Amino acid sequence: MNELASLYFDNAATTSIDERVLEEMLPFLKHNFGNPSSVHSHGRDARAALEKARKKISGLLNVSPGEIIFTSGGTEADNMAICGAIATYNIKHIITSPIEHHAVLHVAEQLAKKQNLKLSLLECDNQGRLNMEQLAMLLENEPNSLVSLMHGNNEIGNLNDIKKIAALCEQHSSYFHSDTVQTMGHYPIDLKTLPIHSLSGSAHKFHGPKGVGFIYINKNKKIDPFIFGGGQERSFRGGTENVAGIIALAKALELAYENQTAHAEEILGIKTYFKNQIIKAIPEVTFNGLSGNLDESLYTVLNVSFPPSESNEGMLLFHLDLNGISVSGGSACSSGAQLGSHVLNALGTNPQRENVRFSFSRFNTKAEVDRVVKTLADLYLP
Amino acid sequence: MNELASLYFDNAATTSIDERVLEEMLPFLKHNFGNPSSVHSHGRDARAALEKARKKISGLLNVSPGEIIFTSGGTEADNMAICGAIATYNIKHIITSPIEHHAVLHVAEQLAKKQNLKLSLLECDNQGRLNMEQLAMLLENEPNSLVSLMHGNNEIGNLNDIKKIAALCEQHSSYFHSDTVQTMGHYPIDLKTLPIHSLSGSAHKFHGPKGVGFIYINKNKKIDPFIFGGGQERSFRGGTENVAGIIALAKALELAYENQTAHAEEILGIKTYFKNQIIKAIPEVTFNGLSGNLDESLYTVLNVSFPPSESNEGMLLFHLDLNGISVSGGSACSSGAQLGSHVLNALGTNPQRENVRFSFSRFNTKAEVDRVVKTLADLYLP
Repeated sequence: MNELASLYFDNAATTSIDERVLEEMLPFLKHNFGNPSSVHSHGRDARAALEKARKKISGLLNVSPGEIIFTSGGTEADNMAICGAIATYNIKHIITSPIEHHAVLHVAEQLAKKQNLKLSLLECDNQGRLNMEQLAMLLENEPNSLVSLMHGNNEIGNLNDIKKIAALCEQHSSYFHSDTVQTMGHYPIDLKTLPIHSLSGSAHKFHGPKGVGFIYINKNKKIDPFIFGGGQERSFRGGTENVAGIIALAKALELAYENQTAHAEEILGIKTYFKNQIIKAIPEVTFNGLSGNLDESLYTVLNVSFPPSESNEGMLLFHLDLNGISVSGGSACSSGAQLGSHVLNALGTNPQRENVRFSFSRFNTKAEVDRVVKTLADLYLP
Repeated sequence: MNELASLYFDNAATTSIDERVLEEMLPFLKHNFGNPSSVHSHGRDARAALEKARKKISGLLNVSPGEIIFTSGGTEADNMAICGAIATYNIKHIITSPIEHHAVLHVAEQLAKKQNLKLSLLECDNQGRLNMEQLAMLLENEPNSLVSLMHGNNEIGNLNDIKKIAALCEQHSSYFHSDTVQTMGHYPIDLKTLPIHSLSGSAHKFHGPKGVGFIYINKNKKIDPFIFGGGQERSFRGGTENVAGIIALAKALELAYENQTAHAEEILGIKTYFKNQIIKAIPEVTFNGLSGNLDESLYTVLNVSFPPSESNEGMLLFHLDLNGISVSGGSACSSGAQLGSHVLNALGTNPQRENVRFSFSRFNTKAEVDRVVKTLADLYLP
């Protein structure tokens, strides 16, 4: 008997590497192994490739190459932005939200505790909409704050209006960092017109490898380094550069931008189809956050709330996994984690229901969706 | 006319990836792309491989798997150790030396400045030998200090007696971190018998990829995290793990340990041959630091001081590069760097002489040495 191929619907946790990305990075794992800081031919080859990658990324984001600093991923970039902005601009007040990724939330909490800073968490409604009036008021009361609010939520898909947030921060002379890990490569971000001070990207969320990412730092709002070492990245980030990873990151972002509209349309088609089919199959489903609102959420994320069911209680993910379907019950970035999702908790989600995040990529198909929905329908058979 | 193949004698800057390492990591760039924090089959495959890698490394170092934390490289590991130890143990005094790597020196200087800590730099003689009596005195005067002293110096090859340093730190209840980036995989380190609190390793110094390393943290002397995020690495280090890189790191270290004695003998043979041949060819050469003393220095490093020469003045590296020979004038980790080496400066090295670091790997041959020495002899022809 043939086993069914496993299906991957957890693309907000990580994505598979595009073959063309792997092809581009391989020479830098095989032959071109020089250290970009070395002044000889081996080093120069690595340096040239590294700077070409930087230029490619800066071109896509419409910024200067010097504003792109490579990191080990999105988490380091978020930590760097928050620690750096606070230290550099002597900021005493952090504004973020309870539904941010832990890469933002945990470092903000730590800094607030250690340096005795004020930490304000914006209110959000039961669909995760942030209280923007509260943000305006907080900024009015205390300019020179640090605002860290994400672009697209990794669990519930909510898209924040970062233009509006940026404008508020500008108005009140505050630093604005955005965790754009979920939207980078998936949405166009033109930094010439968006007055944001820093944002983060991670290659493995757009079909690049794990362990490499970047931070954009606006040249007029530089921040202190986070990792100190041999002066790499114009002294913004010490440590020998992950050359192969950086080449791959640039290629992955290039591919993402080349076909952004087509990918967006295609993946939104998958999400819409999934939503419609699951409603037909299990009419009692609802959608967490704004993920069911197709134009207010990431086209890559649908967070489904399933009705309580004795046979599936606490076991839905497990049953799906047994059927070869990989999905997430919350952010897969919480290791070892069956603690429940801090995002769904902040929304006051009904704990009796089973919540599953389905997240899509251009490698998913409608036929796959059919199999997932059929499996779910069978699990919910009366 | 055939161009001569280029020769690589800069293995202290970075090494080429061993084919067997690449082979081991490739499946994790191609098919096994899961996020180790995901609880489904894709995630479990990644998690299993990650923990197997950790176990392999901990076995080689004779520690518990939980004492190995993966990082983006040696620089992050050094930063983490120093920041973490100071924060966790409320340390007010850092002891290090002027010939440490910048990954240690720059973060120590930053912390000292920002947190108003005392920073003591040990004296060293003109061969880079540290003043151990001074260390003992400093520790006696101020217990609960942080000592960060490297095992093998990346520029001049000096080997520090880390057993003796560890014993002194133990005696005076001080924290001991060692930057072991140059010795990891090249020298046996048995952590069961060495009372050290943390040390750092970087895959690309022993034929693994760039962008991945680790820190060993003694389980009885835990330190605060440096990068906060989704609870990865038992909450010691946030950020999605660089799975492929970690698999590669473990394989590279395994290969290094499997053949350590043989590699050491082989590479020491190359170094000895190089030393003898260069003395024959250019009798006026001397050796910087202890690198000419075969049993007091890394078998991978020979730092040669060439006599002043009008035709080569400031151009020796350039001439060698033109002849297809890649070597370093100092630490290649200093980006963009023609500032001169802080290590050679600390030793009071004669600035009239040309200093070149030749660093060896098991992929170098005596025939290659012959070509390098011949090229140098030609450059120094009267």
